[in-house]
Amino acid sequence: MRGDRILLAHGSGGKLSSELIQEIFFPAFGNPALARMDDSAVLPLPLGKGQGEGSRLAMSTDSHVVKPLFFGGGDIGRLAVCGTVNDLAMVGATPLYLAAGFILEEGLLLADLRRVVASMKEAAAEASVSVVTGDTKVVEQGGADWLYVTTTGVGIVSDGVNVSGSNARAGDVVLLSGSIGDHGIAVLSRREGLEFGSPVTSDVAPLNHMVAAMLKAAPHLRALRDPTRGGLATTLNEFAAQSGVSIQIEEAQILVRPAVQAACEMLGYDPLYVANEGKLVAIAPEEEAEAALSAIRRTRYGEDARIIGRVLPSPTGRVLMKTRIGGTRIVQMLMGEMLPRIC
Amino acid sequence: MRGDRILLAHGSGGKLSSELIQEIFFPAFGNPALARMDDSAVLPLPLGKGQGEGSRLAMSTDSHVVKPLFFGGGDIGRLAVCGTVNDLAMVGATPLYLAAGFILEEGLLLADLRRVVASMKEAAAEASVSVVTGDTKVVEQGGADWLYVTTTGVGIVSDGVNVSGSNARAGDVVLLSGSIGDHGIAVLSRREGLEFGSPVTSDVAPLNHMVAAMLKAAPHLRALRDPTRGGLATTLNEFAAQSGVSIQIEEAQILVRPAVQAACEMLGYDPLYVANEGKLVAIAPEEEAEAALSAIRRTRYGEDARIIGRVLPSPTGRVLMKTRIGGTRIVQMLMGEMLPRIC
Repeated sequence: MRGDRILLAHGSGGKLSSELIQEIFFPAFGNPALARMDDSAVLPLPLGKGQGEGSRLAMSTDSHVVKPLFFGGGDIGRLAVCGTVNDLAMVGATPLYLAAGFILEEGLLLADLRRVVASMKEAAAEASVSVVTGDTKVVEQGGADWLYVTTTGVGIVSDGVNVSGSNARAGDVVLLSGSIGDHGIAVLSRREGLEFGSPVTSDVAPLNHMVAAMLKAAPHLRALRDPTRGGLATTLNEFAAQSGVSIQIEEAQILVRPAVQAACEMLGYDPLYVANEGKLVAIAPEEEAEAALSAIRRTRYGEDARIIGRVLPSPTGRVLMKTRIGGTRIVQMLMGEMLPRIC
Repeated sequence: MRGDRILLAHGSGGKLSSELIQEIFFPAFGNPALARMDDSAVLPLPLGKGQGEGSRLAMSTDSHVVKPLFFGGGDIGRLAVCGTVNDLAMVGATPLYLAAGFILEEGLLLADLRRVVASMKEAAAEASVSVVTGDTKVVEQGGADWLYVTTTGVGIVSDGVNVSGSNARAGDVVLLSGSIGDHGIAVLSRREGLEFGSPVTSDVAPLNHMVAAMLKAAPHLRALRDPTRGGLATTLNEFAAQSGVSIQIEEAQILVRPAVQAACEMLGYDPLYVANEGKLVAIAPEEEAEAALSAIRRTRYGEDARIIGRVLPSPTGRVLMKTRIGGTRIVQMLMGEMLPRIC
């Protein structure tokens, strides 16, 4: 690994994050669940003879350090609940229980903590999960930016469900549940005090009910992932690498709201790399793609869902995009850090 | 709640921590698992008809912000693994899986991160648990003190095991697995560059194998808890309040190492309130107390275990201590903050 110190880019969700995982965490903790590199670990439940056979536990954790704590469309509390609920949903699990670890900076307004906790309560109710345990630590002024929350979730993966980023096959169809870039731009605009015509609000939302509807309509769904840090481009590259396939998408099918587009143009960002917190990418076998699409569109956060591309056999590990003007370009993983502290 | 801002004392594990939980977290997240106030939530596993009946999931989370990262006898990595393993063990669960969320400060030496991760690996191996999933966030310089780790664990509670701080009954016996105050003084002395005669090392250790041995020898064990923040005094007060009983202990039976005693005298601390990370308090029915004691003493971290007191019917909710000189004093919960950033 280059250099000898942690850089902001190690937290980007892109290439340096991936190097950190490959070079430090995997060698130490390596085990089959971790090695699968999906949004949650999927684990056997050793319950004794004849008990719970075929049942698997899903487990996922996310630390949240978003800055500022409150932004258009959400706050760190809603983000912390939805982020973990979504990671569980992305392996096809039914989320059940959440744990929340709070790191509070001395001097934090109790009113702000109450607001964050109320927002977590509301998001948990929407996602039908319970916050069952927690911990609070306080650090001196300067030891944190007011409030960090680490949420960990567990859920159950039903018998027969097998959703993984490594399951994509040539011929499969790629779906996207809605517009991209809203979360990243919403946080950035609040943080920097920028305005881009109409206000941009975050898409932060729990996607587990959407996933349940999709799995009912398309039981052989191959892969699911929510394109958070690193954006859509990074998620598609992860799928291509994990499954050993190529993914080809069409720029014209990717929805970017005008205010997000304007902000990206002004700031020099590519919306393909901007974080989302209420969108998912799904890979479905061709014969179930239309059913999956209709199912997503009928759910609360899926009305703008579209088919955005296809899985091809080669070039292996590559994501290609047909541009609006008819060309083709390679879509790389995120390199470096674009928007720190976005989640 | 007094005041309108978070104070360091809200993270003490004592009275203000308890107020924060009662006034902010409970009203929002209230549910039976959380309300039990044990070290881990114990939860039903909805696995479908005829599957896993009687099996319960234990779940616990802890954020670790100890300062400095490395201290005599351990580091933040060993602490993060043992803290969560122990919280699971304290409800009688067999710990299985851990999740780790890292918050890293820009500029952290990769060598330090590697050292912490190696220490987590070693502690996880000792405790027979796997780190199955994780997350890494990076904040700018000044957004954290190098490294915080939040570990969340899940385990299975076997059929028939019912260990809770609310189960103590008059006539029960109180056991302590060894000396108190070692962890708190070890961290403090490293942080402040103090020396107290012989060096003090932290007791940080996984206690799940000790608990397994105890449960085998004393299957009706009522309550277990590791006296971390707030120390032995706070743990005993929690038991007295949860169970609606009185606990009477004998000062002469409580082991404090000479160097820890010397440090406490110099700094004006009472060892009863200093954090431990490798000790447990157990409450056993009288008829199983000797068996429990022998079982603890045969395990790696339990050779100095002793019976330190009894459960009495009244005064309800109170902890009383027979002092060495023959008097009796009330032992209160920790008020205010004594040693911040100890875990």
